[in-house]
Amino acid sequence: MSVGDVSKRILLGRKLSSSQLGETLLPKRIALPVFASDALSSVAYAPDEVFIMLSVAGASAYAWSWKIGVVVALVMLTVVASYRQTVHAYPSGGGDYEVAMTNLGKTAGVTVASALLVDYVLTVAVSISSAAQYAAGAIPALIGHEAIAATVAVILLAAMNLRGVRESGGFFAVPTYLFMAAILGMCGYGLLQLATGDLPHAASAGLEIEPKEGWEGPLGQVALMMLLARAFSSGCAALTGVEAISNGVPAFQKPKSKNAATTLLLLGLIAVSMMMSVIVLAKQMMIRYVDPHELERLRSVGGGALPKGYEQHPVITQIAQGVFADFSPGFYFVITVTGVILVLAANTAFNGFPVLGSILAQDGFAPRALASRGDRLAYSNGIIFLAVMAIILIQAFDAQTTKLIQLYIVGVFVSFNLSQLGMIRHWTRHLKTERDPAERRLMFRARVINTFGLGMTAIVLVIVLITKFLAGAWITIIAMILFFLLMKGIRSHYDRVADELKADDQDKVMPTRVHAIVLVSKLHKPTLRALAFAKATRPNTLEAVFVDIDEDVTRRLLEEWDHRGLDVPLKVLHSPYREITRPIVDYAVEVRKQYPRGVVAVYIPEYVVGRWWEQLLHNQTALRLKGRLLFTPGVMVTSVPFQLRSSAVAIERERREESRVHAGDLRRGRARGDDQPAASDEADA
Amino acid sequence: MSVGDVSKRILLGRKLSSSQLGETLLPKRIALPVFASDALSSVAYAPDEVFIMLSVAGASAYAWSWKIGVVVALVMLTVVASYRQTVHAYPSGGGDYEVAMTNLGKTAGVTVASALLVDYVLTVAVSISSAAQYAAGAIPALIGHEAIAATVAVILLAAMNLRGVRESGGFFAVPTYLFMAAILGMCGYGLLQLATGDLPHAASAGLEIEPKEGWEGPLGQVALMMLLARAFSSGCAALTGVEAISNGVPAFQKPKSKNAATTLLLLGLIAVSMMMSVIVLAKQMMIRYVDPHELERLRSVGGGALPKGYEQHPVITQIAQGVFADFSPGFYFVITVTGVILVLAANTAFNGFPVLGSILAQDGFAPRALASRGDRLAYSNGIIFLAVMAIILIQAFDAQTTKLIQLYIVGVFVSFNLSQLGMIRHWTRHLKTERDPAERRLMFRARVINTFGLGMTAIVLVIVLITKFLAGAWITIIAMILFFLLMKGIRSHYDRVADELKADDQDKVMPTRVHAIVLVSKLHKPTLRALAFAKATRPNTLEAVFVDIDEDVTRRLLEEWDHRGLDVPLKVLHSPYREITRPIVDYAVEVRKQYPRGVVAVYIPEYVVGRWWEQLLHNQTALRLKGRLLFTPGVMVTSVPFQLRSSAVAIERERREESRVHAGDLRRGRARGDDQPAASDEADA
Repeated sequence: MSVGDVSKRILLGRKLSSSQLGETLLPKRIALPVFASDALSSVAYAPDEVFIMLSVAGASAYAWSWKIGVVVALVMLTVVASYRQTVHAYPSGGGDYEVAMTNLGKTAGVTVASALLVDYVLTVAVSISSAAQYAAGAIPALIGHEAIAATVAVILLAAMNLRGVRESGGFFAVPTYLFMAAILGMCGYGLLQLATGDLPHAASAGLEIEPKEGWEGPLGQVALMMLLARAFSSGCAALTGVEAISNGVPAFQKPKSKNAATTLLLLGLIAVSMMMSVIVLAKQMMIRYVDPHELERLRSVGGGALPKGYEQHPVITQIAQGVFADFSPGFYFVITVTGVILVLAANTAFNGFPVLGSILAQDGFAPRALASRGDRLAYSNGIIFLAVMAIILIQAFDAQTTKLIQLYIVGVFVSFNLSQLGMIRHWTRHLKTERDPAERRLMFRARVINTFGLGMTAIVLVIVLITKFLAGAWITIIAMILFFLLMKGIRSHYDRVADELKADDQDKVMPTRVHAIVLVSKLHKPTLRALAFAKATRPNTLEAVFVDIDEDVTRRLLEEWDHRGLDVPLKVLHSPYREITRPIVDYAVEVRKQYPRGVVAVYIPEYVVGRWWEQLLHNQTALRLKGRLLFTPGVMVTSVPFQLRSSAVAIERERREESRVHAGDLRRGRARGDDQPAASDEADA
Repeated sequence: MSVGDVSKRILLGRKLSSSQLGETLLPKRIALPVFASDALSSVAYAPDEVFIMLSVAGASAYAWSWKIGVVVALVMLTVVASYRQTVHAYPSGGGDYEVAMTNLGKTAGVTVASALLVDYVLTVAVSISSAAQYAAGAIPALIGHEAIAATVAVILLAAMNLRGVRESGGFFAVPTYLFMAAILGMCGYGLLQLATGDLPHAASAGLEIEPKEGWEGPLGQVALMMLLARAFSSGCAALTGVEAISNGVPAFQKPKSKNAATTLLLLGLIAVSMMMSVIVLAKQMMIRYVDPHELERLRSVGGGALPKGYEQHPVITQIAQGVFADFSPGFYFVITVTGVILVLAANTAFNGFPVLGSILAQDGFAPRALASRGDRLAYSNGIIFLAVMAIILIQAFDAQTTKLIQLYIVGVFVSFNLSQLGMIRHWTRHLKTERDPAERRLMFRARVINTFGLGMTAIVLVIVLITKFLAGAWITIIAMILFFLLMKGIRSHYDRVADELKADDQDKVMPTRVHAIVLVSKLHKPTLRALAFAKATRPNTLEAVFVDIDEDVTRRLLEEWDHRGLDVPLKVLHSPYREITRPIVDYAVEVRKQYPRGVVAVYIPEYVVGRWWEQLLHNQTALRLKGRLLFTPGVMVTSVPFQLRSSAVAIERERREESRVHAGDLRRGRARGDDQPAASDEADA
């Protein structure tokens, strides 16, 4: 291994040749963390949103917090039950998009796709913003610089994904299980303290919350409904990411669907327990939590101003501060794993985005290049696009999770709804043909579950739209409409082209003759090779063509041509303005005019260099010429390459490029897990 | 003409088809302004520099100003005399670069080229900075924002040149003759007032200049020499641009050399008169002018502080204020044409830069793409590079002409010196063979002139180096060294490649057989055409190849293949990871291994679309594949294009692109002058 290889390895991460990329199926214990980080991480911000919304009516409204938690948990379990039907019915991993597309048609499918695209952006923005807030809780120097920290984190994540992260089960399993342990452990310990009457109060417990104007005193019926609706719809942020497993069924070990459904149920139960514990504990610790933009509504007891420099930390941070008052390692552990799980959640968006892109590309709704795993450029552009959009949101909303949440939930529930509706259609369709009573019973049951799920998610969507439209959901809806139009536009372009390209029998007609032209710029190896190759194809006519831009050069070339005894006639094209492309194109057009039923084959000698700066110095003319000739009917253009020594550099680079791991490989069942180290891996080190 | 055409015409300027680009030779009265703006414009800043340098020793040193002017004028006329020899000996327009390259070899030639490149950048920076100062004299709102104004101006100039400016004689003639009239008229009027004793004092006449520390009181011999040397070397800024005509001889009417020499003499005389008039008048009007960074050295009479808000305007502005005290239109006229001529001077750099680039490219010292007039990309990159460098200088030196001048003159005199030295060699060489006594006498005379010129410019170069090295000339020298190394590096790369490409007889060996592979992605028109074209070439083996990434798609394709009764065998390559490029490349390599003395011809069906966004949506795979196949030995790659309807858009765009005028066409004798409106021009309107 050369020194260059070592430095490249350090920079690019461990090599993983394509042959090592085998199908690796995930056992449930690994699949759970791989797909759970997004869903579980929402416990880091969803309870906070419930408290913020309730705080509008003062701390007394916090009495509602656990009831709202219960309703959110109910919705969550309903959605989980619904998706368990989906993973059975659609084990191919197409998820909501496939369900909507198959059962409701293109418009619904593209709508779901738009919602998912917007959601990926928001997942990054929300998770990283929240992570920045947790980081500020542990590192006071970050306070006030959350937006910058979040932006830097997004850039780092994007860079990591551009490089190609080697994902492994362990990469997800360790932090996810630690996070579960941390939150459940902390809450368990807290509840124990509660039982023994030792539960300390939160740091903010001594504060008073001044209700917002118009929300003072006992609330009327409508106002109360509105308050609870808002708190509930914000709490529904806990549901984001639940659908991830339905996109990952192919990565599960057999029986895939059954394992996926079990994992989904586990995920739902864990998420619900974590959320409920946090809400109950926060309530019992008398946490006071308001919109960070309305901090002035927090008062010291007696109505005095807040202590100078008071910082409002997220709910989990406050709980950890209280519960682990005497054990700061516990506090730092909880904050750290929470931050890590949030970053991991953002990373799932970077993984899911190219997967969705490739599915959309296969269906013609996205540039076809996205469909190919090997298209590094398309793939990178996707990651950069995602990062840029997320950074714009982070900057625009100053990394305020509360604000970003307003944009987040619409998209999620749009796809929930369409997916449930699609599932109902699916069962109805199958019930028409299915005759086996046992199967029919199962299908009926599934349809009931999905119908209940649709009812539930439809209500939530309406509540979300009403309570959040002006607060930011309109931005999401506009973005969804734009994505929708773009995807529809791309598809209709592909359709138009396909129409224009449809073959008919006339297309089989063979040209009557081949007129070959070899372009000559100098008499060097590439030219001689092009002449030899062109001759080998035995065209009806073969001539070499040279563009005269300098008399001396032309004379010398003609002499050398004779001297070498080349038996191909050399035609010299005159070019008074030193143009090269135009005379050749004009000549090709002219030849073609003489033989309208023939074909003109233009052979371009090219020498191939390896380094990027060498490519700047060479072949620009050949490139431009090829570009022009492609627009000329009845012409085909042949590049006859001559590989210079330096071309080896490019081959090596390309090989490395191809063997790089792509984000999302793991959840597509394509990467090697840690469980099965390839033998060659050791040999390679 | 469609509406689209009209809007494009407004945006892009009048069309000028390539066939209209005829050889247009310039009469002297047009050639003078075309080539003079750079040289004449220096009267706008050179006298100022003389006064600034002398002011170091207080206003009493201004007594030397006209004497320094005389010496500068002497140098100027010497240089003009020398260049008159050059235009006779080298009428091809290669200028200093050609002289140095021919007579002194590559190192000298590349040194001159580096000096010229740096000078182009500085011409833009200095001229535009000076123009910004004049603009601030007429528009007080610009005071203090000169750097921003200058930057905007450079961007506008670059944009104009990227668009392709239609230069015409009138474009230069009107402002240049107006500038001559303005300056000479103003000075004539001023000198008349002087004669009648009515010459008003300048606005700054009432101020006192405090000498710089160490320069007070009567100066010693050495200090005086130093003072005068510095003032003189700054005054030599007047010589910049004198060499322009030697690069433009081919654009002159016949007898080219004689006309060019006459124009050069005229230019020299006009420049000298303008400069001397300005210096004398400024001296007589008691102008007080110091380095703008040391304004505190200017005092009100009696040593008091300057009047609040005092702005030091350039010398010509101050003269115009005085002379036209009662006639403000006269003042504004002078300032305006001075500003315009400075912008025009900057524009000459934008014109000269691509010309020099193409000459360097022909000699292999710059990327070959620059040699082709049609390479829009290379051409644009040159303009952008020039603009960016100039803007960096303007920003770094805050558009202070005085500071920028310190960097400017080194490069000019480096090329003057090498060019004179080259001319001496030239005459010496010719004298060795020339036998005609009359000719010999002329050559002797020319050699004497060039020798005198060399002596003079060598002294100036030494003075400039001594007085300006630390003040900024070192930057220029470093930049020159970098350009020098870059150009040498490019040339040696081209030499290495040429060596590797040198033909030998083995290269004529013809491949024994042709194995043709037609790539199939779908069964549409482009594929059928590619099959037909490939068949027409009658290869030894012909097969179609399809990469299987989806079983269903593959099955359908195979069915359709049979159904259509295509008589070419279809080979399906398996690709478990949905890769397309790799299986094809691997297959080509394998085929080639079977027939090591044959050639593999890969036919790629491509459909050609016209709009840029369509190009993003199509053919990315074909492009990548072609790129990879070029690196595979023994393979040739044929693109079989199928033109979709929208491809017409691109052809039209390309046609427009080609017919655009390029900056510098006029001075290369390539653009149509206003004198000869082409008949088609009228018909076109």
